[in-house]
Amino acid sequence: MGELDNILEEAKMPQITIIGLGLIGGSLGMALRQAYNGKAELVGYDSNSKAHNRAKKAGIVDRTEWNLDKAVENADVVVLAVPVGATPEIFQSIGPYLKEGATITDTASTKREVLVWADEMLPESVGFVGGHPLAGSGLSGSDSATPSLFTDKKFAVIPSTKAHQDSVGQVLKIVDDIGSSPFFLSADEHDSFVAAVAHLPAVISTALVSAIAKSPSWREMGKFASDEFGDISRLASVDPEVNHGLCRTNPDMIVYWINQMISELQDWRSMIVDENRNSSESPLMNSFVSAWEARARWSAGIDPVDFPQQEIPTAGDSMMSMLLGGHMARRLSSMTKDDGQDPTRYRGR
Amino acid sequence: MGELDNILEEAKMPQITIIGLGLIGGSLGMALRQAYNGKAELVGYDSNSKAHNRAKKAGIVDRTEWNLDKAVENADVVVLAVPVGATPEIFQSIGPYLKEGATITDTASTKREVLVWADEMLPESVGFVGGHPLAGSGLSGSDSATPSLFTDKKFAVIPSTKAHQDSVGQVLKIVDDIGSSPFFLSADEHDSFVAAVAHLPAVISTALVSAIAKSPSWREMGKFASDEFGDISRLASVDPEVNHGLCRTNPDMIVYWINQMISELQDWRSMIVDENRNSSESPLMNSFVSAWEARARWSAGIDPVDFPQQEIPTAGDSMMSMLLGGHMARRLSSMTKDDGQDPTRYRGR
Repeated sequence: MGELDNILEEAKMPQITIIGLGLIGGSLGMALRQAYNGKAELVGYDSNSKAHNRAKKAGIVDRTEWNLDKAVENADVVVLAVPVGATPEIFQSIGPYLKEGATITDTASTKREVLVWADEMLPESVGFVGGHPLAGSGLSGSDSATPSLFTDKKFAVIPSTKAHQDSVGQVLKIVDDIGSSPFFLSADEHDSFVAAVAHLPAVISTALVSAIAKSPSWREMGKFASDEFGDISRLASVDPEVNHGLCRTNPDMIVYWINQMISELQDWRSMIVDENRNSSESPLMNSFVSAWEARARWSAGIDPVDFPQQEIPTAGDSMMSMLLGGHMARRLSSMTKDDGQDPTRYRGR
Repeated sequence: MGELDNILEEAKMPQITIIGLGLIGGSLGMALRQAYNGKAELVGYDSNSKAHNRAKKAGIVDRTEWNLDKAVENADVVVLAVPVGATPEIFQSIGPYLKEGATITDTASTKREVLVWADEMLPESVGFVGGHPLAGSGLSGSDSATPSLFTDKKFAVIPSTKAHQDSVGQVLKIVDDIGSSPFFLSADEHDSFVAAVAHLPAVISTALVSAIAKSPSWREMGKFASDEFGDISRLASVDPEVNHGLCRTNPDMIVYWINQMISELQDWRSMIVDENRNSSESPLMNSFVSAWEARARWSAGIDPVDFPQQEIPTAGDSMMSMLLGGHMARRLSSMTKDDGQDPTRYRGR
């Protein structure tokens, strides 16, 4: 961390311009204003006049600009916080006005295309360092902006090959100053990982809504839709332009995961029609338990690789207790233990 | 409502026994104790001693019983609040001990099998009336029990063909007393509707976790999993026995919807590989917008059938504003309007 501290110490940033003042851009503005308290000037731009005025009124930035060229011409750092599909046009629009040596970064949740666009469209004299805060679920609107959005969150940093060390340092400083933990990885790695845990969920959530809303019974079914449906369909409420952008810029990885998901659903279908499905030893029941365990470990922040399947006692009071906390462990334990022992003993739903 | 009031007035219920003191059973106990304030005796049973003792300590019921026969022998109403798969064994266990004329009801989220079991296993002298509160997401534990769980929620009531009017009346009274709105429908209708909006989500959520957790990159991918993954995978955290029970008792309907979902994902895959995908007029973008609209209407409680697609202005300030509220309408409107108009104008992410 000594080296990082030096980098952070040396980096200076008189003007930071944020393009796009929605949830991410707005929260970033608020977090940076808190962090710098006048030591850096924060300039905001949003094409939407409501978002623009709201940001101005709420003091999300020090000042707003109505013209993109004016917004960036004196900026030491420019942060794009827009749907990824809008990125290339912004790069082309701001390119001619960027200061020599400026650092350009973004917050989009795909990186391969963004790096290609930066390489093709931004001038050689600036440094592009891709960024992706692992915060916010894509649900949009500066109404929900909060300076703590990034606190204790991870923040992926993906520098372009041409980016100068100073640009990387400036982005690391910003990430550190908003309370996030930066980590490096390649654009390929980044896009493959987010495809599974963020983009596939967006497609599944939206496809589920499509499938159900097409049904002639949707009017009646809608009445039965409760928290279960609300949670699983939430990503269908993300700005369609944001979701469209994911599919535009990460199609191969998303298609890979759609194929995995189709294959998985075919397996589940087989397990459900299997005549042995009712048994507590059925593949169906075992699959529910395995997924429950995987999610419990994820939710508890337990690294799955450190605790491979065979180390976990199936009726465990010991390690499961330690890993998952007493209550969850007892549930799994009692579930496993009770099976078929005493038909008059039942647990509550 | 006059007739319902009469029914409610005439129904008396000195003892109500709740079998299973998890989230649903525990909340029901609390809600009924509040409602009756000593006018009915609430008896609780749970095979899990922790749940039993917690219910006793928290005053969820007036008293608890360790034996199922003792718990039900004087009960005027018996409510099962257990995973649906445990239902037949409970029916068989309690059958011989039930009082003549007692009303038996349940809270399971499938109904066809439960009615068959009731018909086969319960004595002729009692009346079975199926129930399904549209509250709680299946996430379990009496730790989260609250008397307000059912307030202003819908409550499906599905009487068996043999059930006496008095039994139906007693269940309606309970539903009314806990603050829910009862409505009738057939077991077939019930199971087909919940298959789409509750059971399919449970399978999809669990299958998604299975598919991703199998990947050798899950360790790294887990770090990228944020709110998106948390929401869409939440139903994989439901007690596996509850999820297993859905698939055991509603397999045909669930398989129908799995097939719909596979077909839908195949369509999305085609739209994503389509070379026209980047266009704002592409089927991909249109599908994201349609799903966004369907979810927005559902979320706002707007009946989809009253507002068919063609009545909604695509760049609407008028009806969309009225339907969805100013902010959401503006987002959709600006999304549609801005497209391709001015390349230097971008909205925030």
